[in-house]
Amino acid sequence: MKIAILGFGTVGQGIATGMARKDLGLTVTAIADSRSGIMESGGIDLQGALARKRAGGPVGERGMDSLRIVREGDYDVLVEVTPTDIRAGEPATTHIREALSRGRHVVASNKGPIALHYRELKELAASKGVELRYEATVCGAIPIIHVLRHGLRGNQVKALHGILNGTCNFILSRMAAEGLTYEQALAEAREMGVAEADPTYDVKGIDTAIKLVILANTIWDLDLGLDGVEITGIDQITPEAMRLSMEEGTTIRLIAEAIPDRGLFRVSPRLVPETHPLVVEGTLNAVTISTDLAGSLTFIGKGAGSIETASAVIGDLLHIKETYARRA
Amino acid sequence: MKIAILGFGTVGQGIATGMARKDLGLTVTAIADSRSGIMESGGIDLQGALARKRAGGPVGERGMDSLRIVREGDYDVLVEVTPTDIRAGEPATTHIREALSRGRHVVASNKGPIALHYRELKELAASKGVELRYEATVCGAIPIIHVLRHGLRGNQVKALHGILNGTCNFILSRMAAEGLTYEQALAEAREMGVAEADPTYDVKGIDTAIKLVILANTIWDLDLGLDGVEITGIDQITPEAMRLSMEEGTTIRLIAEAIPDRGLFRVSPRLVPETHPLVVEGTLNAVTISTDLAGSLTFIGKGAGSIETASAVIGDLLHIKETYARRA
Repeated sequence: MKIAILGFGTVGQGIATGMARKDLGLTVTAIADSRSGIMESGGIDLQGALARKRAGGPVGERGMDSLRIVREGDYDVLVEVTPTDIRAGEPATTHIREALSRGRHVVASNKGPIALHYRELKELAASKGVELRYEATVCGAIPIIHVLRHGLRGNQVKALHGILNGTCNFILSRMAAEGLTYEQALAEAREMGVAEADPTYDVKGIDTAIKLVILANTIWDLDLGLDGVEITGIDQITPEAMRLSMEEGTTIRLIAEAIPDRGLFRVSPRLVPETHPLVVEGTLNAVTISTDLAGSLTFIGKGAGSIETASAVIGDLLHIKETYARRA
Repeated sequence: MKIAILGFGTVGQGIATGMARKDLGLTVTAIADSRSGIMESGGIDLQGALARKRAGGPVGERGMDSLRIVREGDYDVLVEVTPTDIRAGEPATTHIREALSRGRHVVASNKGPIALHYRELKELAASKGVELRYEATVCGAIPIIHVLRHGLRGNQVKALHGILNGTCNFILSRMAAEGLTYEQALAEAREMGVAEADPTYDVKGIDTAIKLVILANTIWDLDLGLDGVEITGIDQITPEAMRLSMEEGTTIRLIAEAIPDRGLFRVSPRLVPETHPLVVEGTLNAVTISTDLAGSLTFIGKGAGSIETASAVIGDLLHIKETYARRA
């Protein structure tokens, strides 16, 4: 199966590293980074491409751009791993739309197109008889979308509660463990590379809400947007509030909640019993889903990281490969 | 797709209840309990069958037995949910062997045949081009085998650690929370219906070891037996040991471990940091798997229960239905 990779930053390089490490029966025929591109129908030398990036160079020729690869490339699956732009969702949405229109499968880690245009892209994929998969957009290495779509067949999901942002969870874990102020914990997160220079997107709950939108649309086939989610961030939480919560055997975590029967889609700091499976430490992610047959299930794993996100993309690629081979 | 259900106790009735509750496109054409059986190619009235059992009667005719259903029944999938006999694995192994030999798919919740004869039954299924699935044998409602076989495609599993027995976990949770002795906690578990009158099978670690064998054989394609697992139960744990462990921020849980690179397959009480995702309360089950790409992932859910186990069986049935429909 031939793969075109758009975006060759941490995730794209993680995928190439994973593919170079073991034989998965996948051939990369095109790669684009932000300033160059390369196409080779016989298969690109991944070690060479990774070495060029490590040396600070472009991955391919300047002048070869990602849109040309989408339109002219020789691939079965487009892997869209460019950085997320949550306002416009571009150029990723154009990439995905054009690849699906060409009858190509798409695997995305880019949250923008899936959060903004899920319904349209899903219907386009269905009309072309191809797959649109996006496991890597939520909860990094946890195969939560796979479990929801396949592992829990026959179950109806009633509610979802999740810790979907590692930066916020790190900050709140540190406030709880050490009695730090929000500002102190944020400074520590920055020092450790867990928070970005401008942490707004994470600490205001926006990243969490985007992931909640993606999960809710997937589970309940909705057309929910960010404006349908009530969002409160973690930047107003005081050490006193944390201390009081801990006296009661609870702790404060940023929880994404979706209970469609009650019309509830919310991201906010919540009190959670310390013994609840959702209460994870540091940058971990966790999701609890409540179902009609299987009861409550919790899934915990790393929410970010180059190779962990690559694992989710590779899982999607191998799912398509198996399904496609069976049909062919 | 036509289903024959062998065993109509809590699990069999849970499956029938789940199927009666919603249309899954599955038709039950045969049911056997321990003393009777019924076959109807057009589909059995599940509400009627459940009502007969609730009234204390047999589900069908006396003289119609499960082996006759296996051999003569009109079904695509045999659902083997008779009680586990871990010494001989019978009559379930015969049921499964004969159904596979007829070219029928098998879904089992019965641990005996899978723990004792995994390699033989797996190879028989493969030679006939049919599925042998057994999600319900381990961790109740958690779709752990599905995740291992499908959700983590591309990953190599390096190690597994699990809490696989709800009775032991309940007893240890209560000892930790209330300072109870083992005997006090066991008495409480019996009162609540969480422990059986003879709890040996659970508290000696045997049930946990059986599940470890099933998981290890599935993940690493081994031919491990119970005699390949080092087993220590929980009945020697004292309140003093629990108190000392808690002073260090750890707690004691009965942990199943498999690390094949080190030849380690062990069930024993271990100290686990209280904040580790594996540390769940009460009768919950939890499994942590360590992988080369996705890192460590933990899955938590109910380990037992009629409808929860039925959820796992139904998930397997729908997986076969989808795969089969695609091929047909």
